[in-house]
Amino acid sequence: MADRHNTYFNSVDWAAMQADHPVGDDFIRFASKSRDEIRAHKDRLFKRLVDRAWKTPFYQRLWGAQGIEKGDIRGLDDLEKLPVFDKSDIMASIEAHPPFGDFAGFEGYGEEGRPPVIMHTTSGTTGTPQVLLFGAKSREVQNLLLGRLYRFQGLRPDDVVHSVYGHGMINGGHYVREAVTHWTSAIFMSAGTGLETRSVRQVQLMKDFGATVIVGFSDYIKKLAKVAREEGIDPERDMNIRMISGHLGREDKLSLSEAWGGVKCFDWYGVGDTGCIAGEGPDRDGLYIMEDAQHLEICDIDTGEVAADGAEGDMICTCLFKDDIYPIIRFNTHDVTRIRPGESSLGLNFQRIEGFLGRSDSMVKIRGINIFPHAMGHVLESHQSFAGDFICKALRDASGRDDFIVLAEVTGEQSDALADEFSAILKQAIGIDMGVKLAAPGELASMTQTEVRQKPIRLIDERF
Amino acid sequence: MADRHNTYFNSVDWAAMQADHPVGDDFIRFASKSRDEIRAHKDRLFKRLVDRAWKTPFYQRLWGAQGIEKGDIRGLDDLEKLPVFDKSDIMASIEAHPPFGDFAGFEGYGEEGRPPVIMHTTSGTTGTPQVLLFGAKSREVQNLLLGRLYRFQGLRPDDVVHSVYGHGMINGGHYVREAVTHWTSAIFMSAGTGLETRSVRQVQLMKDFGATVIVGFSDYIKKLAKVAREEGIDPERDMNIRMISGHLGREDKLSLSEAWGGVKCFDWYGVGDTGCIAGEGPDRDGLYIMEDAQHLEICDIDTGEVAADGAEGDMICTCLFKDDIYPIIRFNTHDVTRIRPGESSLGLNFQRIEGFLGRSDSMVKIRGINIFPHAMGHVLESHQSFAGDFICKALRDASGRDDFIVLAEVTGEQSDALADEFSAILKQAIGIDMGVKLAAPGELASMTQTEVRQKPIRLIDERF
Repeated sequence: MADRHNTYFNSVDWAAMQADHPVGDDFIRFASKSRDEIRAHKDRLFKRLVDRAWKTPFYQRLWGAQGIEKGDIRGLDDLEKLPVFDKSDIMASIEAHPPFGDFAGFEGYGEEGRPPVIMHTTSGTTGTPQVLLFGAKSREVQNLLLGRLYRFQGLRPDDVVHSVYGHGMINGGHYVREAVTHWTSAIFMSAGTGLETRSVRQVQLMKDFGATVIVGFSDYIKKLAKVAREEGIDPERDMNIRMISGHLGREDKLSLSEAWGGVKCFDWYGVGDTGCIAGEGPDRDGLYIMEDAQHLEICDIDTGEVAADGAEGDMICTCLFKDDIYPIIRFNTHDVTRIRPGESSLGLNFQRIEGFLGRSDSMVKIRGINIFPHAMGHVLESHQSFAGDFICKALRDASGRDDFIVLAEVTGEQSDALADEFSAILKQAIGIDMGVKLAAPGELASMTQTEVRQKPIRLIDERF
Repeated sequence: MADRHNTYFNSVDWAAMQADHPVGDDFIRFASKSRDEIRAHKDRLFKRLVDRAWKTPFYQRLWGAQGIEKGDIRGLDDLEKLPVFDKSDIMASIEAHPPFGDFAGFEGYGEEGRPPVIMHTTSGTTGTPQVLLFGAKSREVQNLLLGRLYRFQGLRPDDVVHSVYGHGMINGGHYVREAVTHWTSAIFMSAGTGLETRSVRQVQLMKDFGATVIVGFSDYIKKLAKVAREEGIDPERDMNIRMISGHLGREDKLSLSEAWGGVKCFDWYGVGDTGCIAGEGPDRDGLYIMEDAQHLEICDIDTGEVAADGAEGDMICTCLFKDDIYPIIRFNTHDVTRIRPGESSLGLNFQRIEGFLGRSDSMVKIRGINIFPHAMGHVLESHQSFAGDFICKALRDASGRDDFIVLAEVTGEQSDALADEFSAILKQAIGIDMGVKLAAPGELASMTQTEVRQKPIRLIDERF
């Protein structure tokens, strides 16, 4: 009697998958197609996706509640008829239908046996960890998108990639490992967080195995350069790092590059639910949206309407490839960016974004000004005394007046004059007066949790 | 210009691979073949393997030094002409040719671009972590062997598997995750060690997601049952665990099963260099050697000659499937077992072993008797006061006389009378007098390192 398992390799048409989402040179050719051709491809995938979504209780419920019927959504042109949802909807779905929610429809699809399901969680940066589910195809397309992006950025077959993304239940480390090992020929070192492989040991591994590329979150990668120096290893002279790819605010890119002796740093963006949405190419001139697989809308934070090109807004993502389990259609990441105008110098026709500008749900409105705490780092970096770590506090005094202060680590003496210099820089960049409190290097770590979290905390909101 | 990467999915003939190493019902059919048919299959794979090995400098050197020439090895019948090697040879190779040794021959094979390479390390149980390298095919066969073993043991498509194997650079967690996600339909939770996911959180995850199967090392799985109780969760009443599969000494199986309310426990054996070599089936009557993929010799610890059936000896493994990168031919694991005689009640014709009986390189000869420290646990378990953790010490006094003492954690009072009872049990089972020192539960953890190592330390040799 058949044991009714279905296997990863036998449940996907790998050739068809790679035809829809080409890698290597085929990727460049695809991204050079006309906007009409790209749109037609997206439309074809979107129809398949919507068919699949109609089979999941989550979308039946979400769309049904809006009175939407099957015939209403005939293609991408109808996308805006569909409601936007976010993490709170997923959490509510899980609450009502534990443990997987009614989002997943993994009972009863696939013709032979139960299809394989990959389960992970988010790291819980913005709350409790959330379950992530992938079918074999959607998992592997997601891996493909990132692997091919690294190659686009310049990853070579003979590179040795050191990864500081965490493992355990968390998706990140496993995802990036699969992307590199399945879709490139580079050697991959899955070092993980400092808890999985101590920082000193990480530096030694990088040296011993001749790491040439580092991938991960910028704060920990910066820390590794510091640890290397403490161990008497010069990151520039004694190591061969030539490329860093990760999630870099504008402030990170410069300081990160400097920490590692001027290496090229590449930014990419994605969340656990979507995989890689966009990434910088070799031109490092905006993040190319992976338009063969991802449809991205930038929507006004307040009105939810699609923003004008060049205007800031929430990224709303539709994953055109996630047509097996857990479809993602109009998912609001609450991460803010804007479309980058102009032509690609590489002649590619994929749209570009500016990258991550902040989170709209940690955006603080102070006296009418939108402030993204995460973006403060970029401003602080412009003063040479800034030592890298910072955290913001939103406060409300007895009279109801909101205030915003920035705690920043600095090298040298913590004088009032120095605090005033930082205040002036912030006022200049952001437009409002904000208090600055100085701290010694390492002093804020217990608040920002840089040592234990992959994405440090940048805001403490004490107004409520 | 092609970027010369080769991808995991495009570099293997998956159908041919599964024909050589069948899964599910096809596996049962294969294992029911006659010994002659099985031998013919092994012989075919062995020839391919030897061809590949001749292309790696390591084997050219190892075999060349013995005056062996290509024509000398025509099939499995010639296997004993080849020298045995062990971890020290791999370490020497790495020392001489860092960082990968001359074992790997991954430059210049594969026709299009550089073939993908998976790199990990061992956990370093018996020394410094050792590099492990896999090609796409050898990696995936290794995954297949374990995934299919779990299914053979009774893993169902609707199971939720909780894994406590560690990640980071260490192979174990990644390997087991791939085995389950690629070759079964079960849902897999990659919790990892207690450092990756805190034990309290692991218990909560298992409860929330309805884990039905636990895989990993027995000491930590036992600990999770204890943590569950501390959290007010009854492992039997409040959880649905029905199967545990891991690396179980005889002593572990009973206490592990009891800790989880009488669940079925399955043992399997393998090392990082080889993957799964053998595992228990649903009959739990010895570990079936995965003979379509692994050729195992049991060799006398002192003479190195193939031991008589039923006699204890070192496991020398030849991985018939590892014909891409890093071939393994006559690798001495220094783990000891013996062949289990008699017929399989399932009618299978794969040979069976008794499982891991101890390590020959931590074997201690005391007054002419071979003692395997690891095996003491089985003996200690027979006394109801034994609390689970223990460590052995080999000592030499001024006169040159060797002595052996056992430190054992017990519940209740640590009386001399109780120590004498343990001594008597040990003398009865092992045949020599050994001292016993009692300790309170948890007292030995700093020596055995149960909390931080997946495989606890069982011997401190103070004779040298």
